[in-house]
Amino acid sequence: MRIALVGIGLMGGSLGLALRARTEHDVVGYDPDPGALAQALERAALSRVATSLGEACAGADVVVLCAPVTALPAVVAEALAAAPEDAVVTDIGSTKANVVASVRPSDEHRFVGGHPMCGLETRGIGDARADLFDGAIWFLTPAERTDPVRFRRLHGLVQSLGARPVAIAAAAHDSLLAITSHLPHALANVLATQAAETPIAGHEPLLSAGGSFRDMTRVAGANSRIWVDIMLDNRLALATALRDHRRRVDDVIGALDAADEAFLARWIGDAADARRRSVEASYDAPAIDLWRVSVRLPDRPGSIMEIAQALGAARVNIEDMVLDHESPEAGGVIELVVRGVPAREAAEEALSDAGYGVASSPLLEGAADREVVR
Amino acid sequence: MRIALVGIGLMGGSLGLALRARTEHDVVGYDPDPGALAQALERAALSRVATSLGEACAGADVVVLCAPVTALPAVVAEALAAAPEDAVVTDIGSTKANVVASVRPSDEHRFVGGHPMCGLETRGIGDARADLFDGAIWFLTPAERTDPVRFRRLHGLVQSLGARPVAIAAAAHDSLLAITSHLPHALANVLATQAAETPIAGHEPLLSAGGSFRDMTRVAGANSRIWVDIMLDNRLALATALRDHRRRVDDVIGALDAADEAFLARWIGDAADARRRSVEASYDAPAIDLWRVSVRLPDRPGSIMEIAQALGAARVNIEDMVLDHESPEAGGVIELVVRGVPAREAAEEALSDAGYGVASSPLLEGAADREVVR
Repeated sequence: MRIALVGIGLMGGSLGLALRARTEHDVVGYDPDPGALAQALERAALSRVATSLGEACAGADVVVLCAPVTALPAVVAEALAAAPEDAVVTDIGSTKANVVASVRPSDEHRFVGGHPMCGLETRGIGDARADLFDGAIWFLTPAERTDPVRFRRLHGLVQSLGARPVAIAAAAHDSLLAITSHLPHALANVLATQAAETPIAGHEPLLSAGGSFRDMTRVAGANSRIWVDIMLDNRLALATALRDHRRRVDDVIGALDAADEAFLARWIGDAADARRRSVEASYDAPAIDLWRVSVRLPDRPGSIMEIAQALGAARVNIEDMVLDHESPEAGGVIELVVRGVPAREAAEEALSDAGYGVASSPLLEGAADREVVR
Repeated sequence: MRIALVGIGLMGGSLGLALRARTEHDVVGYDPDPGALAQALERAALSRVATSLGEACAGADVVVLCAPVTALPAVVAEALAAAPEDAVVTDIGSTKANVVASVRPSDEHRFVGGHPMCGLETRGIGDARADLFDGAIWFLTPAERTDPVRFRRLHGLVQSLGARPVAIAAAAHDSLLAITSHLPHALANVLATQAAETPIAGHEPLLSAGGSFRDMTRVAGANSRIWVDIMLDNRLALATALRDHRRRVDDVIGALDAADEAFLARWIGDAADARRRSVEASYDAPAIDLWRVSVRLPDRPGSIMEIAQALGAARVNIEDMVLDHESPEAGGVIELVVRGVPAREAAEEALSDAGYGVASSPLLEGAADREVVR
């Protein structure tokens, strides 16, 4: 097949690398920035470059548009006009309803919205990588008039990149992302600005905040240029999610005002269940198999290497690792997640032998207790 | 001095270990659980054990009470009755106003509330460690009637453990912690339960959530037994913080309804500033000196060791490290934080030489741009 990629940044470049590494397709790329195209050729992310969007789309079986959300409707229209009638055109934007709605009825059978759930903090073809899509969910938004043949072609292409295609209606996609991504970003911004704007008797909350605050504001203020557009584009679904959030906050305020211990206990228990389901999905393992191994380490070069060496020599597979930096004086705590009691015991032994203090606990509180009632 | 520790779990045990490692004080411990005392003696966390709270407090210069928040008023009263008149009694509870208010006026000069900002996910003397307090902020709540001599004695003891004592009024402490800790925990619970209870057209938000959602729900459902008590004890300050949060959410909903691009851009910009200040405080470094180095790695034993070895051999000091596990198929991305361009370049070179693809970017977006205007 001939695949046209329009917009050769991190995503377009990674698509090119993945297609060329995993398929025999002819990959034609276009970007308004000639520098990006030169870099893509240098990295062999493209079979060849086109000098216009129209030239890239001519003769394409699949067109993938990697453009900012606000630019998509115009780019989609241009691509549909330029591509052969039997092509399927898709995009990779973070929101779907508006771009899908922008397509003329006579082109609806030829366009399928898409959204791969992956990325990096960085942008640009320089950071592109062939394995970016490995295992990632890739939403596709077929609609009533979508042609099944074209949809299957796109579905197969997504699978051939190592991603997991998931079909979903465009509006449902936007509601889902409003909850799983846009709402968390909005709450991070609200929390960060509230802490910044609420000094308490001369004490700055930002300066004494601990791990939970740092976790919850990690995405605060991320990429204003992109996020204003995403939030505006998905403003109805995000506002709906925020209204639901506000109702839930009202319930908590009501429980606190009434000192309603039963409400709080049930609510925290429900949150623990939700977290368990999310963690089990993420690790594809029951919570009782997941252990946290904590190692305190001094703030000096070499200690992380020692720990990693000890674990590597013991052949412990690490599912997750977080170094929680506490302060320049204090160093930090490395938290490892390992799967299964044998891995936990091997990690404990290896780290103790290397002279480190180790503490283990179930990754999720109460997970070990649940074993009994299962 | 003679120091009495009441309640020998993770915190009391760590206090004992730190006192015995760093001072010459006589450390007497009491816990209603004889097993905890036996373990503390075995680990040499105590000079000796007492058979009652009264016996532990007799002759003490400083009494440190490590008991659950709800038990503290009774334990504080008992300790004040048992300790010599010239002793200073303190606690390490997560909330301060109620326990301070519970002290009789005639004892107010002898009690100072305390709250060390450290801990581990685990509990129990088994995980106690002498360096738990290194560099940690330790709030102390002197009041109008607090005796300066006793306060200085406690202040000095906290410093001798390696912690950083910070004096604050009890009510201000609780308002501060409401924002920096209790509000983040509450929002994590709200977000986790909302996602669990809002299936979208058959799609479970919990099962397709990405990194921002995982970050923001890491503390969801944490330790129901402890958190119900903390939230109830600090319910006025937490409800105030949640009401402020709700007003801010209303503002965002209003901006979304009005498609107010300027509001959203300003709000995200303010959040970015707040995050920058929080990160700079946490690393004690200007944001322009902090770099993120991302390495994609396969899900197999040994790769983390290789990366750590390469960095160790290049003598790169790692400020922070997060392994973001994406899926069992996909492996994950290791994100390192390093300080300064030389460290960034050394890390990039070492990892490239080891065969890993590396991408670097400023830890905070726009941090590199700011260099120009400084």
